[in-house]
Amino acid sequence: MNVVIIGGVAAGMSAAARLRRLDESARITVVERSGHVSFASCGLPYHVGGVIQERSALLLQTPDALRAKFDLDVRVGTEAVRIDREGRRVVIRHLESGQEEELPYDALVLAPGARPVRPPIPGIERALALRDVEDTDAMVAAARGARTAVVVGGGFIGLEVAENLLHRGLAVTLVEATAQVLAPLDPEMVAPVHRVLREAGIDLRLSTSVTAIGEDAVQLSTGDHVPADVVVAAIGVRPETTLAEAAGLELGERGGILVDDRLQTSDPAIYAAGDAVEKRDALDGSDVLVPLANTANLQGRRIADVIAGREVSDRPVLGTAVVGVLGLQVATVGWSEKRLRAAGHEPRIIHTHPLNHAGYYPGATALALKLLVDPETDAILGAQAVGREGADKRIDVIATAMRGGLTARELAELELSYAPQFGSAKDPVNMLGFVDENLATRLEVTVQWHEVAAAQEAGEVVLDVRTPEEFARGAIPGAVNIPVDELRSRADDVPEGDLIVHCAVGIRAHVAAQLLGQQGRRVRNLDGGYTTWAAATGA
Amino acid sequence: MNVVIIGGVAAGMSAAARLRRLDESARITVVERSGHVSFASCGLPYHVGGVIQERSALLLQTPDALRAKFDLDVRVGTEAVRIDREGRRVVIRHLESGQEEELPYDALVLAPGARPVRPPIPGIERALALRDVEDTDAMVAAARGARTAVVVGGGFIGLEVAENLLHRGLAVTLVEATAQVLAPLDPEMVAPVHRVLREAGIDLRLSTSVTAIGEDAVQLSTGDHVPADVVVAAIGVRPETTLAEAAGLELGERGGILVDDRLQTSDPAIYAAGDAVEKRDALDGSDVLVPLANTANLQGRRIADVIAGREVSDRPVLGTAVVGVLGLQVATVGWSEKRLRAAGHEPRIIHTHPLNHAGYYPGATALALKLLVDPETDAILGAQAVGREGADKRIDVIATAMRGGLTARELAELELSYAPQFGSAKDPVNMLGFVDENLATRLEVTVQWHEVAAAQEAGEVVLDVRTPEEFARGAIPGAVNIPVDELRSRADDVPEGDLIVHCAVGIRAHVAAQLLGQQGRRVRNLDGGYTTWAAATGA
Repeated sequence: MNVVIIGGVAAGMSAAARLRRLDESARITVVERSGHVSFASCGLPYHVGGVIQERSALLLQTPDALRAKFDLDVRVGTEAVRIDREGRRVVIRHLESGQEEELPYDALVLAPGARPVRPPIPGIERALALRDVEDTDAMVAAARGARTAVVVGGGFIGLEVAENLLHRGLAVTLVEATAQVLAPLDPEMVAPVHRVLREAGIDLRLSTSVTAIGEDAVQLSTGDHVPADVVVAAIGVRPETTLAEAAGLELGERGGILVDDRLQTSDPAIYAAGDAVEKRDALDGSDVLVPLANTANLQGRRIADVIAGREVSDRPVLGTAVVGVLGLQVATVGWSEKRLRAAGHEPRIIHTHPLNHAGYYPGATALALKLLVDPETDAILGAQAVGREGADKRIDVIATAMRGGLTARELAELELSYAPQFGSAKDPVNMLGFVDENLATRLEVTVQWHEVAAAQEAGEVVLDVRTPEEFARGAIPGAVNIPVDELRSRADDVPEGDLIVHCAVGIRAHVAAQLLGQQGRRVRNLDGGYTTWAAATGA
Repeated sequence: MNVVIIGGVAAGMSAAARLRRLDESARITVVERSGHVSFASCGLPYHVGGVIQERSALLLQTPDALRAKFDLDVRVGTEAVRIDREGRRVVIRHLESGQEEELPYDALVLAPGARPVRPPIPGIERALALRDVEDTDAMVAAARGARTAVVVGGGFIGLEVAENLLHRGLAVTLVEATAQVLAPLDPEMVAPVHRVLREAGIDLRLSTSVTAIGEDAVQLSTGDHVPADVVVAAIGVRPETTLAEAAGLELGERGGILVDDRLQTSDPAIYAAGDAVEKRDALDGSDVLVPLANTANLQGRRIADVIAGREVSDRPVLGTAVVGVLGLQVATVGWSEKRLRAAGHEPRIIHTHPLNHAGYYPGATALALKLLVDPETDAILGAQAVGREGADKRIDVIATAMRGGLTARELAELELSYAPQFGSAKDPVNMLGFVDENLATRLEVTVQWHEVAAAQEAGEVVLDVRTPEEFARGAIPGAVNIPVDELRSRADDVPEGDLIVHCAVGIRAHVAAQLLGQQGRRVRNLDGGYTTWAAATGA
C-alpha cells in the first residue's frame, strides 16, 4: 500500500509514525514544503527569544532518523502541487531544483496546516510570520541588531512573539485591532494580561490597527507612527487549502477542508487532519476552526488508525488551550461568555479569585477563574483561568469534567489531590461547584460587574463588606462600607432597600448576603467581588 | 435550633460556617479539645521545619473572629465527655478548670478526627505526635538544640516530619516496618522516593521496627541503636471514637463511626464526618478509612446542608492524595496494584515515564506514571504519579475522569491544555490512553518487571533496543542489544524464539515490538521499560 502524507509536522508526522507501527509493509512518503519535519512548532517563539537556546532543540527528528526508525521516505523542501484524484497520484515539486515527480497513492493524507493571514496593508511584505524553522531563522536574523519591533495581533502567537522579542531586548509595540488580547477569553479575564504586558514595558495598543508598514516604522489607525526595525504579523491563521481546493475536495463554511468523523474528505481515498480541517464543536456540533496542536496530533494518529482498519471516531473539540504570558498562565476551555451571548445564550456566570494553594504555605498566588454554565441543565459550557501557577491544572480538570459529562454542581464533589503546597482542601475547582450549587438552588443570587451601574441607578445600594482599609484603597462609587464582621452589631446602619453586597472576591459577601437575606432583605452578591469589577472597569 | 459540633478543624469548622450561612437563627456551639480551632492541620509539619515561619500563619481563625463573622460559640480547651442521647445533651468539660457543662442539642455533629496510633513499645511515652498546634509547639521545642531524630512510620505525615526535621538541621532516621514508604503506592513507584530520602541524607530503615525507645536513642528490630534526641511516632491514625462508642453509636468493621449517605449515625440526631467516620469506597462500595482533608471538608459542608434540609448525598471516596517529599510530588488515586491483587483482581497495568512538559523547552523533568485498569470493562481503577512537577495535575485529571466514568481508552481523547512550558501536545494522560488502547485491542502485549526473570528461564530472550551507550550504562542480565534503528538492517541478528523487547521507557520498544510482531514474531514489550525494571529491582 502506498500512503502519501502532505505535511510533516504535528498531524502529518503523527499519522506517519503511527501508520508505520500499524503496518510495516506500507510505503509511506512524507512531503514537507519547509526544510524540516517534525519540528517544534510551539517552540519557535521561544527560540526567537533565546529561551530555547539551541536551534537544534527545535528539530525533533531528521529525515535520516525517520528513515532508520520508521522506514519513512521523507521529502523536505518539496511541495505537493497537484492531486490527480482519478489516477490516485500526487505531483510533487522539489523547490530547489524545480523538478517534479509523481507519487502514486492508495491513501493520501493532507496535513498542510494553516497559513498566516496577511491583510492587504501597504508594506505587508516586510512583515515576518512564524510558521516554520526558516521563519524562525529569519526572525532571529532580523532581531539581531534591531532595537524596535511591532507585533500585529494579540493572539497566542502574537503574545509569545512579543514576549520573546522583549526578552531579546527589543522595544516592542503590540497592536491589537479589538479591545482585548486573547480573543477566546472574556475581557475582564484578560485585564491581568494587559497589566503584565504593560508592566513589562510592552507598548500595548488596543482597538488599533496598522494602516501602513514603512521602512523602519509602522503607521497606526490612531495616526501614530511607531518605530519598527522588525514587524511581525500574527493576525491569525487560515486553513491551507490550496491543494485541496484545486483538487475539488469539499471545503466547509469556515474555509477548512471538510472531513467526516473518520477524517475522510469528500474523496474517500483522501484524509485530512490538523489546522487545515474543520472540526466539530463539542458543545453545539457546529463546524469550527481550532488550530491547536493537541487536536492535530490526535487526528494524525486517528487517520493512521483508519487507514489500518482500526475502529476510531474523531472526537469533537472543546478547544482547550493555554498560553504563557510573562509568567502568567492563561488557559481556557469551551465557550466564552461573549461567544455564548452572541449565540443567544444566557449562561450562568461564576467568577472566583482563589489562591493556587493553601494561603498559609509560602508562595501562594491568586488565580482568576470563570465558569460558564447552562442554567437549565447545569452543563459546563466553558471556563477560563489566569494566574501565575495552577491555571493549567484547573482548566485540564474542568476539560476532563466536560468530557465526562459532569455538571457544574458535580465539580463540588471532585476529589482532587491536596497538600498545602499544591492545592487546597477545597480546591478552586470544588469552590466553583459550591458556588454553582448555591446559584442553582437560588440560595444565592449574583449580579455581574456590568450590571452594577444600572442597578444603582434603579435605586439599589452597593454594600461593601470589606474592611475600612480595603475600602479606602479603592471602592465602587456610591458604595456603603460595613465590614462583614460588624453586620450583626450594626444592623441599623445597613441601608434600606435592595442591596448589592460585595467584598474583594465574593466569599465574605456570600456570608453577608446569607445573613441579610435571612433577615428578609433582597440581596445580590457581586460575582467575583471588587476584584472582577475593578479588572473589568479598569478601576 | 441548637447545634453542637464536636471538633473545630476541617469537618467541624466547615459544618459550622456553612450552617451559619444557611441558618442565621441556629445556636451553633463548637467544642474543641485543643487550644485552637480552624488551624492549618496540613501545615503543621512545615512549621516544624520553618518553611511556614510564623506560627500565627497556622491559626486561620480565632474564636473571637468566628463569633464576629459567623456568630459561633467556640469553646477551645474543652472536651466533650458524654452524650446523653435520650436527653439530647452533651456534657463538656473545660480542661483547665475541670468544670463541666451540659449543652442541649437538636443536632449533634461529631468531627473529632483521628488519633495517632501508639504501639506498645517500651518508652513510647517519649514519642511525639503531630495532631494539633500544641503538638507542633512541643515538637519545635524538642527540636531546638536537638541533633538527632528518629521518625517512626513512612506514611504521609512521617515523610513530611522527616523532611522538616532534616530541614531544621537534625540528623534524621526514618524507620518503616514494611519494605516501602507510602503504602498507598506500589513498591516500584516509591523507589524514587527512597532515593531522594537517602540522597538528602535521611537514614532510611525499611522492613525495620522500633523495639524500644530510650532516653536518647531507640533500639531497632535489627539490633541497631540509633541516636534520637527527638522521637516522632507517625505510624498512622485511628478514628477517634471514644465518645461515639460510649454513647452506643454504631461503629463499622474498620473501627470508624458508621454513617449513611446523609452522614447520619445510628442515632438520627447525631451526624459524623471526617477522619472519625467510615467512608464508602468509590470502586467497590466497601467501608474504608480515608483520613484526608479534602473529604473531611466536603463532609462537614454536607452535614450543614442536611441539617438545613437541603438535598445532598455523600459521595464515595477515591482517596485522591498528594504529598511533597524533598521536591518530589507523589500523588495517587484509587487502588494500587497490590491492593487490587490482594482482592483477587488481575488489573491491566501501564507504566510510563513521560516528561512533564515538552522536552525541547528548558526545565522538563520526568514523571513516573502508573495506571491500573479493569481489563474487562476498561474502567480506570487507580493511578499513581511521581515527579518534580505536574504529578498532581495528572492525578487530578485522572481522578476527574474516574468520577466522570471515562474509560482508560477515553483518556486518549481528553483535550488538555498545551503549551511547551506546561505540557505536551500528547499529554502524559493521553499517552496512558494510547497505551491502554493498544493493549485493549491486543495490538501490543506487555510484560511486567517482575515477570522478566521467569520468562527468561522459560527461554524468552530479552532484546534491548536502546543505544549501545545506554546498554553499557546498565542492562537486564542476559539481554541482547540491537538499537531500534538497526532492527531492519540487522534482521538476522535478532535472536530466535519469543522475545521481550524493551527500551528506556517503552516507546522505542513499542516501535520494535510492532515491527517484529508483523514479521510473525511473538513479542512482548516490557511495561515501563528499563526505568521501571531498574526502579523495581534496585538495579
